Amino acid sequence: MDWREELKEMGERARCAARALATMRTEAKDAALRAMAVGLRESASSILAENEQDLTDARASGMDEATLDRLTLTPQRVEAMAVGLEEIAAFRDPVGEVMGMWSAEQGLRIGRVRVPLGVVGIIYEARPNVTADAAGLCLKSGNAVILRGGKEAACSNRAIAGVLSRAAEGAGMPEGTVQLIEATDREASVALMQLEALDVLIPRGGKALKQAVAAQARVPYIMTGAGNCHVFVDETAKLDMALDIVVNAKCQRSAVCNAMETLLVHKKAAPAFVPAALAELAKRGVELRGDDAVRALFPEALPAGTADWETEFHGMVLAVRVVEDLKEAMDHIARWGTGHSEAIVTESYANAQAFLAGVDAAAVYVNASTRFTDGSVFGFGAEMGISTQKLHARGPMGVEQLTSTKFIVYGAGQIRR
Amino acid sequence: MDWREELKEMGERARCAARALATMRTEAKDAALRAMAVGLRESASSILAENEQDLTDARASGMDEATLDRLTLTPQRVEAMAVGLEEIAAFRDPVGEVMGMWSAEQGLRIGRVRVPLGVVGIIYEARPNVTADAAGLCLKSGNAVILRGGKEAACSNRAIAGVLSRAAEGAGMPEGTVQLIEATDREASVALMQLEALDVLIPRGGKALKQAVAAQARVPYIMTGAGNCHVFVDETAKLDMALDIVVNAKCQRSAVCNAMETLLVHKKAAPAFVPAALAELAKRGVELRGDDAVRALFPEALPAGTADWETEFHGMVLAVRVVEDLKEAMDHIARWGTGHSEAIVTESYANAQAFLAGVDAAAVYVNASTRFTDGSVFGFGAEMGISTQKLHARGPMGVEQLTSTKFIVYGAGQIRR
Repeated sequence: MDWREELKEMGERARCAARALATMRTEAKDAALRAMAVGLRESASSILAENEQDLTDARASGMDEATLDRLTLTPQRVEAMAVGLEEIAAFRDPVGEVMGMWSAEQGLRIGRVRVPLGVVGIIYEARPNVTADAAGLCLKSGNAVILRGGKEAACSNRAIAGVLSRAAEGAGMPEGTVQLIEATDREASVALMQLEALDVLIPRGGKALKQAVAAQARVPYIMTGAGNCHVFVDETAKLDMALDIVVNAKCQRSAVCNAMETLLVHKKAAPAFVPAALAELAKRGVELRGDDAVRALFPEALPAGTADWETEFHGMVLAVRVVEDLKEAMDHIARWGTGHSEAIVTESYANAQAFLAGVDAAAVYVNASTRFTDGSVFGFGAEMGISTQKLHARGPMGVEQLTSTKFIVYGAGQIRR
Repeated sequence: MDWREELKEMGERARCAARALATMRTEAKDAALRAMAVGLRESASSILAENEQDLTDARASGMDEATLDRLTLTPQRVEAMAVGLEEIAAFRDPVGEVMGMWSAEQGLRIGRVRVPLGVVGIIYEARPNVTADAAGLCLKSGNAVILRGGKEAACSNRAIAGVLSRAAEGAGMPEGTVQLIEATDREASVALMQLEALDVLIPRGGKALKQAVAAQARVPYIMTGAGNCHVFVDETAKLDMALDIVVNAKCQRSAVCNAMETLLVHKKAAPAFVPAALAELAKRGVELRGDDAVRALFPEALPAGTADWETEFHGMVLAVRVVEDLKEAMDHIARWGTGHSEAIVTESYANAQAFLAGVDAAAVYVNASTRFTDGSVFGFGAEMGISTQKLHARGPMGVEQLTSTKFIVYGAGQIRR
């Protein structure tokens, strides 16, 4: 069968499954999640064998070490996927929560109830463990899911999705609860972005994927993970605290979306802070790029320009700029930030309040590292990604962000006058 | 200046305005809304003169009476716009609401705060009063707005938007708070759908507009107002109540999105209900189209087919079908409904519960008319439209639906381990 035809059928199966899942009992969904965990453990050896196939192909194609590492499964990583599903099973079920009920004209009773989104499409890259996380979060929130992984993980994803799908159906979930698109060419990805059966599409990947979605999607989507994050060291900052935060925000895990990409320093803090902080960062292997004021204080820094302010380096590179004041720092963030995570280090009450109120981002910090923007830190458990758009979900997306609401109205024969 | 260049500048002005509006005090926004109301009253005669120009052009082009009526402004309708703005000024300000605050690891305090969306784009058709409603709702919720009305109301919209914009700026709102795109060709509409400065686009119009948005938008959008609504008269329905509801849902205002388009009748209720109900509807001028079972009971009905199940008639036409049971009714709604408003008339507790749980729509009713789906009935005041998508907002959209959230994090030097 042509893959287009197949995708359309997957969409229809997912819609049918979503209708059944919308009213599925919590206990049944949780039992299915635990059965999926058992399935992963029982099939660990065959999943690892398929992963080995992907790794062989990846090495032959000259994949870099970092990506190879993300692609690699081990017995421990398979076990972690299984434990992840069990943790999701233990979450509170968001579906069915009544978020309010009130009286309206003529005695109508109107309530608002949390319901699943319906059919969720997910396009993702290298890491095969996303297959299990995404399937688990979608099932918990009562959604059918259509997954489309990267071609470099095709064998691993097929093995994992097959196990999950069989386990879910074996535990009483409808056919079509978890489906994976096996075609890995670009056209299949675009076809998913335009599949009418989807209630939402969640792309998880790099800039090229996001641009493709913005240009080609014909279904609602949630953009995740663009992270050009800043730390602003204010005039009144405690410099030892600022150094800890800056080092943590840049170096603890430099390739992730909540790592700092640009450091902004108040001109009055700069003489004391910039030389010491940049020396420490350089010692840890960070490549530094600064404006003229920075380079006057730390000549080893390379010159920084517009391209550096707008780049998410995804690694051990940092742009540094000295600013006049809080306003210039906030202007810089408004101009170049992607609305992910932004931090100020300050002892000024007024500046802390102004930064919290005036910076438009998913998470705004006072005196803490941007690295905390994370579903588990925020208390949502496993996350589906970090939304950097303002519609529907912003910040870490847990199971609750995979739901919608509907109004239910109890009448006694009322008609509109 | 080229309109493309102009639109880009409007986007930049709107982004600047949005930053200022995000932290604008409630009292200042409310004063501006009241100043906008005063402006409309003071400029009523010039607005009516511009409207007369639109009406002259519309009559010359042969516009139908219903659309002409929607286009027409009168002193009363201008006053109603002004009163609408004053009502919006009296709403509670949704911005700044803290929706929760909790403790996380190492003593971090994490809160979730309601913030404006930022820049809202609105594309709408015939009715010029939307200009005032939309501008008022956006300002109340701290958003800058870029409006793009239909070409048939170009003079009216320009006059109204000019008055509103001058009044808002005179009352201290930033330049770019309310802007109207004067170019009325299709390309300007598409350019707005792709304007990077927009945080969200809300199209308010017919099917062609919605299809254009789905195909061409490159910014997040909220679809509104597709309303293929059903009433299901169950086996146990009280037939007099069912008749009242059916007549109200079809006839009270047949051209609106929450009017009934298809009536579904349980086969056991059909013999008693169909002849009487259809006779009453016919008497009121409704054109009836039924399946074979319906036509056996009411031979005057025209034959109904697939096209009738899927059509939103926007007028005095009704499709009628006899179904086997609740399940077949719900299957019909799942297959053909647009997820707007769906009602069951029943005395069965179990069927009422099953319908409320199993029907996937913005508003699901038991024993009441679908016509109640409305922002003011639901208690949200003036509305920006009725969302029929599941992302972000579903059902009537008031000022709260024009907001997003952000996380604020209070630290004391915490770094991620």
